[in-house]
Amino acid sequence: MTGRVTIVGLGPGDPRFLTPAASEALASATDLVGYGPYVDRVPERPGQRRHASDNRVELDRARFALDLAAKGSRVAVVSGGDPGVFAMAAAVFEAVENGDPIWRSLDIRVEPGITAMLAAAARVGAPLGGDFCAMSLSDNLKPWEVVEARLRAALAADFVVALYNPISSARPWQLGAAFKIVAETQGPDTPIILARAVMRPDERIRILPLSEVEASMADMSTIVIIGASTTRLIERPEGKAPFVYTPRSYGVRP
Amino acid sequence: MTGRVTIVGLGPGDPRFLTPAASEALASATDLVGYGPYVDRVPERPGQRRHASDNRVELDRARFALDLAAKGSRVAVVSGGDPGVFAMAAAVFEAVENGDPIWRSLDIRVEPGITAMLAAAARVGAPLGGDFCAMSLSDNLKPWEVVEARLRAALAADFVVALYNPISSARPWQLGAAFKIVAETQGPDTPIILARAVMRPDERIRILPLSEVEASMADMSTIVIIGASTTRLIERPEGKAPFVYTPRSYGVRP
Repeated sequence: MTGRVTIVGLGPGDPRFLTPAASEALASATDLVGYGPYVDRVPERPGQRRHASDNRVELDRARFALDLAAKGSRVAVVSGGDPGVFAMAAAVFEAVENGDPIWRSLDIRVEPGITAMLAAAARVGAPLGGDFCAMSLSDNLKPWEVVEARLRAALAADFVVALYNPISSARPWQLGAAFKIVAETQGPDTPIILARAVMRPDERIRILPLSEVEASMADMSTIVIIGASTTRLIERPEGKAPFVYTPRSYGVRP
Repeated sequence: MTGRVTIVGLGPGDPRFLTPAASEALASATDLVGYGPYVDRVPERPGQRRHASDNRVELDRARFALDLAAKGSRVAVVSGGDPGVFAMAAAVFEAVENGDPIWRSLDIRVEPGITAMLAAAARVGAPLGGDFCAMSLSDNLKPWEVVEARLRAALAADFVVALYNPISSARPWQLGAAFKIVAETQGPDTPIILARAVMRPDERIRILPLSEVEASMADMSTIVIIGASTTRLIERPEGKAPFVYTPRSYGVRP
């Protein structure tokens, strides 16, 4: 079997953050498969087929890619950020597990990328400098009770928390509910980072205390980082934005 | 002030995973500062000064870099993986907060990189496909009680857990203690990934059930990923290593 599926992380958007390994995987593919806006980020190449999907679900897209590979194509499934973090890789492996047994023999690879929380963190300082959790706030694929329990557990243990998929038109209330949960246990000055379209032309990053943050400040291109009790702001002169960081130490002075 | 500090993520080691933005930052620096093995990864350039430190602590290295920049140098502080995840970025900002006020005026940037858990996950499938936590198992900078409480909280909420700094000659027992804690609440078949020197020539990756894992299988170049209750293995034919993934869904069938 000569077909192959490579699930490629495009990173935050700007090609300066695309790894050479990911670039190679894109260049050597016979077929690109992915959500339209991600396929659009990849330069067109003569002879390379592009299968941009609009509103098809991720699993259908994964099965389509696997089927192409089983027929001999070298398929690149394009994914934003890192494919393994709330993106296409899990969908592809879920399709493999439940699909045609021949798919298990395929050469399936993942090319890692800069996931949104790392890009956002880099823009403001080092808010993920201590222990942290990453969770999707979407309750499309898990009950809200699970989301809430995980968020409460992470806050109680004083992890920094990165929230993916914080809000969308179909899920308008979840982020507000999450901020209420945060306010139950964390202080009003807890730093909240709202990082939208990081490293893209329409980037907008805000750093606000919990007491001033509102769910309406985020959209589906936003990643939200909730500071731990130790997360700190470093004020800077001349109107420069503060740095935000979480020290490596906790409860001890090194 | 013309000096600058850029904290550059080298990724897992192979230059194929170094972003173009990170490459540029290394190329334009007048001075490289970092732990010797990381500095060694960067090709030598005429006129570029290299300040490789051996056993100096991270804060001293950070202060040295800031001081060079305050004198006008363009300094690249090199860091493994992503600088913001258990690496040099938090140390630099800690030095800024507690150091010479002039350092706050410096141009300080972070160039993100592929952190170890993303590289390890990509090698085996998509084990971080659901919600996950990343924590350092080192108790050099936080009490072991905090490490233990966070690990228990993450397991109780059924997060996948990535353990950085699992073991070293100075910290020989912590990983064994962590595995015992995992065994108290998670089943013996829980998949554990031990990923050593990922994407380097001496890479070694093992996937074992919790009941068969031993702390001695890890060293200071290993990242450990502990599966959640939903993390699954996909067996493959022809002696191929299984895929490991965590489905996006939890407690619901989409």
